[in-house]
Amino acid sequence: MIRIVKAEILAIGDELLYGQIQDTNSFWISQELDKIGVKVVRRTTVGDDREAMLHAFSQAEEAADIILITGGLGPTRDDLTKPLLAEYFNCELAIVPEALEAVRQLFERRGRELTPTNELQAQLPTKCQYVPNEVGTAPGMWFEEKGKVWMSMPGVPHEMKRLMSNYVLPRIKRLFDLPVIYHKLVKTVGIGESWLSDLIKDWESALPDHVGLAYLPSIGEVKLRLTATSTTFEEAEREVDEQIERVRPLIGKYIYGYNQDQLHTVVGHHLSQKGESIALAESCSGGYIAHLITSVPGSSGYFKGGMVPYHNEAKEYLLGVKRETLSSKGAVSEETVIEMAKGIKDKFNADYGLSSSGIAGPDGGSSEKPVGTVWIACANKDGVRTKLLKLTQDRALNIHLTAVYALNLLRRCILGESDD
Amino acid sequence: MIRIVKAEILAIGDELLYGQIQDTNSFWISQELDKIGVKVVRRTTVGDDREAMLHAFSQAEEAADIILITGGLGPTRDDLTKPLLAEYFNCELAIVPEALEAVRQLFERRGRELTPTNELQAQLPTKCQYVPNEVGTAPGMWFEEKGKVWMSMPGVPHEMKRLMSNYVLPRIKRLFDLPVIYHKLVKTVGIGESWLSDLIKDWESALPDHVGLAYLPSIGEVKLRLTATSTTFEEAEREVDEQIERVRPLIGKYIYGYNQDQLHTVVGHHLSQKGESIALAESCSGGYIAHLITSVPGSSGYFKGGMVPYHNEAKEYLLGVKRETLSSKGAVSEETVIEMAKGIKDKFNADYGLSSSGIAGPDGGSSEKPVGTVWIACANKDGVRTKLLKLTQDRALNIHLTAVYALNLLRRCILGESDD
Repeated sequence: MIRIVKAEILAIGDELLYGQIQDTNSFWISQELDKIGVKVVRRTTVGDDREAMLHAFSQAEEAADIILITGGLGPTRDDLTKPLLAEYFNCELAIVPEALEAVRQLFERRGRELTPTNELQAQLPTKCQYVPNEVGTAPGMWFEEKGKVWMSMPGVPHEMKRLMSNYVLPRIKRLFDLPVIYHKLVKTVGIGESWLSDLIKDWESALPDHVGLAYLPSIGEVKLRLTATSTTFEEAEREVDEQIERVRPLIGKYIYGYNQDQLHTVVGHHLSQKGESIALAESCSGGYIAHLITSVPGSSGYFKGGMVPYHNEAKEYLLGVKRETLSSKGAVSEETVIEMAKGIKDKFNADYGLSSSGIAGPDGGSSEKPVGTVWIACANKDGVRTKLLKLTQDRALNIHLTAVYALNLLRRCILGESDD
Repeated sequence: MIRIVKAEILAIGDELLYGQIQDTNSFWISQELDKIGVKVVRRTTVGDDREAMLHAFSQAEEAADIILITGGLGPTRDDLTKPLLAEYFNCELAIVPEALEAVRQLFERRGRELTPTNELQAQLPTKCQYVPNEVGTAPGMWFEEKGKVWMSMPGVPHEMKRLMSNYVLPRIKRLFDLPVIYHKLVKTVGIGESWLSDLIKDWESALPDHVGLAYLPSIGEVKLRLTATSTTFEEAEREVDEQIERVRPLIGKYIYGYNQDQLHTVVGHHLSQKGESIALAESCSGGYIAHLITSVPGSSGYFKGGMVPYHNEAKEYLLGVKRETLSSKGAVSEETVIEMAKGIKDKFNADYGLSSSGIAGPDGGSSEKPVGTVWIACANKDGVRTKLLKLTQDRALNIHLTAVYALNLLRRCILGESDD
């Protein structure tokens, strides 16, 4: 039986406690430790305060095998992590020549002068092992003291992440006898959490004990997280994949991808594969779908472009929507989104044209078309598919949901899958 | 002399420790307590674990006057906050008729049946004061025990926020003799933190003791946060405003707003005021500026629309950029963004045309035009202003920074302010 390895995450800084910045580090570290089978038992945030920090150190030592500390490493007097770790482990601070050279080189590369304050960054507790920070001035410090592992890292997220990925996580994996854990996310769209759970309840109750399932809902989507614990990675992976093969026949049409996949990356991938292209006519989504698509490197290979025809004149003169359609059916209508989708496809000479028109809110609703009424359409050479969405009272949420459902409509058109 | 009132924020839930969801509650509560002069001394997150929770309760009681707890209030056996608070305060759990009636009504409104499990939501520790949750099934619980104030709230963010705003914060303000604190954010764009600090260093060092200053940098922007402590709110406000009047002559051209203002809301406000309109031609920003502008309710009043001409053909045929400009100068050039800005202004019949074209990366750079090279332009009836940006290697960052600088260029055009 493998012993559970416990960790405490300690974030340091007045700016965290006062709500000046959001602590994203502890969240990220939680995820990474979870992936390698280390159990986070507590997260604590304290300010730049001697008593509070020393108390947090001793509490962490009591609770955990591994203590990961972020923040409090700046060169100014406010930053106490380094002197207090030296005090806690009963040792001195001394310049580490290798660390000094690294700081010197960093300042040289940036064309800035090395000040005496910055030289202090190379002064470390003598009991720590120096861990080079390749992208910042505050080094990492690794301690193995009193039977526990301690790592102190800067609070700047990309510096911390680099130290964790390149040094801390591999070293923890070598040092501890960790359970082999394998996770896989199954990403679904277009179905709510309770409906999904109804569809898969027999499969879920038949899951073996060592395979866990979590529902992770987000806007318009639900992720299923399968976790297997086993003796080898290959065995755990095989168990998860086997279960996914069993659940796929039940919910296959809602599954758009796995793990890091996102709807807009998946759509881009399908388009690339088929050598096809897309153009967008976004009224109520206001450019958000274009933003999602163009956030992907290489999207210029399949994204022809888009238009945000926010007013009727633009829909008419620039996209070719008929004036009589707009006047008789209104801008938020099936007929209008069909003409928009066809119009944008032709204007940009793309294989697919995707369009949205709706009442995002908070104003502009009527009894016939309340806030949250949205039409979306996807056109290709074979025709046009449309969908009516009845969304919420919240503008930001409506924009986000319109993008999710429109990208899913496009995905199903590309794959030639039938409508729900 | 006012005694400092200390608070601990306690978040409960395995899903937080395992990184399945980000704890945004503790961050929000930190900000709200800071605003009313309560000092957060620690934030702790523990799992759904009896020992860990009881230990956290006693630690919090030692450290703070006010203990705010979120999470662990669901109706299932995993959720321990309620029974453990009863245990900690040495009392029973009993149904509160008023709470039961509230749960019953909530289920009726939602057209769902009240199950026995859900009835348990109305069972509360006898020592607590029941605090109605108008938007969810788990009630709030207020304790005044052992000389400390405790409040337990559900982990669902909008339920917690409502309880905090309507009940907890007002009650804390009545109960404690809090210092009067007034904050104001001065929002700047287009200048880095160290340059800004150089420009205002004399002003900064002349600040009186009871007025504090913090630099809060974010992407492309730096916020200055002024905080005054005084005996009355009016006095604190006057002190902060007086200091802002002194610093404005030094950095006025970088200040775009205050407090909740954002560049895209400020630009929208200026356009509304002047009865003018804007249209966008976004190449490298890929629709992100349109998304920011249309995220604001009422933006249809001044936003005519936009185009994302991702390929040269679209720039030429749909926007009217000359073929010879594209072939001789390239798509990423001052000449091209000028023609794009003029073209979009005319196509949409808007007062301003704003354009971007650049190499967002990670690919597509050359020695002459490396990744991060971006041109932006703003056209109106009087002419066109342009700006060359030299940004980063990071695609997402380049898109974000292009939007910030383009919106600032537009802001300065609208205000008729000269270029830097």
